[in-house]
Amino acid sequence: MKIAVDAMGGDYAPSNIVAGVLQALQGTKAVTKLFLVGQPERVRAELTQHGPLDPRIEIVAASEVIEMHDPPVQAVRRKKDSSMNRSIDLVKRGEADAVVSAGNTGALLTSAHLKLRTLEGVVRPGLAVLLPSPHNVVVLIDAGANLEADEINLAQYAVMGSLYSQQILGYKNPRVAVFSVGAEDMKGNELTQKTYRLLKQIDVNFVGNMDGHDLFSNVADVVVADAFVGNAVLKACESTARLVDVWLRQEIKKTPLRILGGLLAMGAFKELRRKADPDEYGGAVLLGINGTCVKAHGASSPKAVKNAIRVATEFVEGQFNEHIIERIKQSHDQIQHSQIAQSTV
Amino acid sequence: MKIAVDAMGGDYAPSNIVAGVLQALQGTKAVTKLFLVGQPERVRAELTQHGPLDPRIEIVAASEVIEMHDPPVQAVRRKKDSSMNRSIDLVKRGEADAVVSAGNTGALLTSAHLKLRTLEGVVRPGLAVLLPSPHNVVVLIDAGANLEADEINLAQYAVMGSLYSQQILGYKNPRVAVFSVGAEDMKGNELTQKTYRLLKQIDVNFVGNMDGHDLFSNVADVVVADAFVGNAVLKACESTARLVDVWLRQEIKKTPLRILGGLLAMGAFKELRRKADPDEYGGAVLLGINGTCVKAHGASSPKAVKNAIRVATEFVEGQFNEHIIERIKQSHDQIQHSQIAQSTV
Repeated sequence: MKIAVDAMGGDYAPSNIVAGVLQALQGTKAVTKLFLVGQPERVRAELTQHGPLDPRIEIVAASEVIEMHDPPVQAVRRKKDSSMNRSIDLVKRGEADAVVSAGNTGALLTSAHLKLRTLEGVVRPGLAVLLPSPHNVVVLIDAGANLEADEINLAQYAVMGSLYSQQILGYKNPRVAVFSVGAEDMKGNELTQKTYRLLKQIDVNFVGNMDGHDLFSNVADVVVADAFVGNAVLKACESTARLVDVWLRQEIKKTPLRILGGLLAMGAFKELRRKADPDEYGGAVLLGINGTCVKAHGASSPKAVKNAIRVATEFVEGQFNEHIIERIKQSHDQIQHSQIAQSTV
Repeated sequence: MKIAVDAMGGDYAPSNIVAGVLQALQGTKAVTKLFLVGQPERVRAELTQHGPLDPRIEIVAASEVIEMHDPPVQAVRRKKDSSMNRSIDLVKRGEADAVVSAGNTGALLTSAHLKLRTLEGVVRPGLAVLLPSPHNVVVLIDAGANLEADEINLAQYAVMGSLYSQQILGYKNPRVAVFSVGAEDMKGNELTQKTYRLLKQIDVNFVGNMDGHDLFSNVADVVVADAFVGNAVLKACESTARLVDVWLRQEIKKTPLRILGGLLAMGAFKELRRKADPDEYGGAVLLGINGTCVKAHGASSPKAVKNAIRVATEFVEGQFNEHIIERIKQSHDQIQHSQIAQSTV
C-alpha cells in the first residue's frame, strides 16, 4: 500500500516526521511506497542524516506550510500548495491509500472532509481517539470533527467506533455507551436522549449512558459524544495526567529521602509515563471519509509518527472503509424498519 | 449564623456527616446553631459516640431519605419529609442561613432551585466547583445545574464565578475564560461564540476562550461552561487523577526495589493525594439562589463535611448573595447600554 506523510506538519517537523517514517518503514513490508510531502530541500536534508535512502520513499514537493495557528478553512483554501493539502490530494487522486499528519488538527479535518468527502451513507466524519485504562482501551468518538452534531451523526459514530474496536483493537462485542452526565437512562440533554433512543434500534452492543467518572472503569469500549464534549474530555484527561506528573516530580524533589526513593522507584514512574503516553496510541483517526486519515499529535516524537503510520496501515489492510459502508447501510435499514414498526403499532 | 446539615445524605451518612459537623463546630464560633436534619434515633446514636453534646446542635426530625439513585424531580416532590428537603425548608423559612448536603446532587440542585428560587435578576443558578493547580485555584461554573444553558446564563455564571474568586478565594481581578475547543476567538460552537460576544460587554476580566489543555496552566481563574461540558470536564479530571493513582500503586508494587523506593518517597505520594483530594476543597456551591447551598461529594469524609460547612459560613459571612444581586444588575445595565450604543451607530 501507499502512504502519504505530511513532512512539514507538527511542532518538530520535518525532523521527527522523517525519523518516524524511517522507523515505520523498517518495521513493515506492507508499505510499498511512502510519499514524504513538503519542502524538498528541508526533507532531503533530514533524510541524508539517516544513511542510504529507502527506495520506497518518494519526496513530493509542496512549497507551503500550514501553521498551527492558521484558521482551518482559510488554510485549506489559500495554502493550496501546502504539504498537508498536497498529501490529501494524493489520496484524493488514488495515488496514496492513506495520509498521516501531525499538523494543525482543524485544517486536517477540514481538508480531508472537503477533499475526500464522506463515505456512502455517512453524513459527517468523526474523529476517533483511544483512551487507555487498566482494563480495556476505549474508543472515544467524536473528539473534534463535528461541533454541531445531531443524533444521526452520533449513531453513525457508534457504528464506526464499534467497528474500530472490533476490527483494529480485537474486541469481539464492544460495549457502546453515550457520554452523558450520569448513567441513568434519562440523564443528559436533548441530544443524548435522542441518541439513546436511536442506539436502541440498531445493531450495536449498546449499554446505555455513562459519565466522566466511568471513563476508565471498564463499562464501555466505545464512547460516543459530540465533538465539543469529546474534545473537552480528551483534553481534560491529558491535562490532568500532566498535572499529576508535575506535582509528583515537585514532591519527590523536596527531600533527600524522597529523591532516593524516587530513584529506586524510577522504573515505576517510567512505566506510568509510558502508559499515559499519547505517542503509544498511534494518533487519532478520522472515520467516515473516502480514504484513511490519521492525525498524530502536534508534539509527536518519531515513535508517535511511526505508530500513526502503523495505524494507517491497519485501517487500509483491513479494508475498513468497505466495512463501514456495509454497516452504515445495515443500521439505516434497522432504523427504517423500527420506524415503520412503530408507525404501524 | 445558622446552618442546616442533611445528616442522611451521602455514602457514609450519618456517621461521617455527624463527625464532620462536630469537627466544624470545634473550629468556629460563627455558627450559633447547627440543625442536624434526619432520622432522630440514628443521628442521636452517632452523636452519643462523640461525648457531651455541643449545645448549638439541634436535631430536626425527617423520616425519609433521598437515595443516590432517586430521580431528582420525583425525590423532591414525593419525599417531602426527607432530610434533604427538610434542610432546605429551614433555609426557605429563614430559620437557617445555609444548607449543606452530601446527598444526591440532582435532587439537591432541583430542590434548592424549586424551593429557594433564584436571586433577583438571576435567570438560572449554576454549580461552582474548584479545580486546584500548581499556580491558582480555578472556579469552574456550571458543573451540573443547567443542562440547556444559553449565553445569558453563561454570562451570569461569569459574573457570579468572578465574585466567588474575588470574595472567597481572594483574587483581585480574576481572569474569566469561556471553555471551548481551542483558545482562538472564533473556535467553539454557537453557544460559546454568543457568550464570547456578551462577555466583551460586561465588567468582568474576560480573557477569551480556552480549552481542556489549559485547565491547569494558569490562563484563567474562572472558567465558564454549560452544565453538560462542566460536568464532563470535572468528572474526566477526577477519573484521570484516580487512574494515575491506581497505575502508580500497581507499578510500585511490582519489584522489591520499587516497593522500597515507594516507602522512602511515601511523603511525596501522600502530599500528591492531598493536593488532588476533593475533600480539601469544601464541596460545590450552588450560586444564584436565595440562600447558600453547598454540596459535599457523595463519598465525603468527616473532613470534607467540615470543609463544606466552612465554605457555607464564608458565603454567609461575606453576604455573598447581596453582592451577586448588585453585580448582576450592573452587568444587565452594561449589556443594555451596549445594545443601545450599537443600535444608534
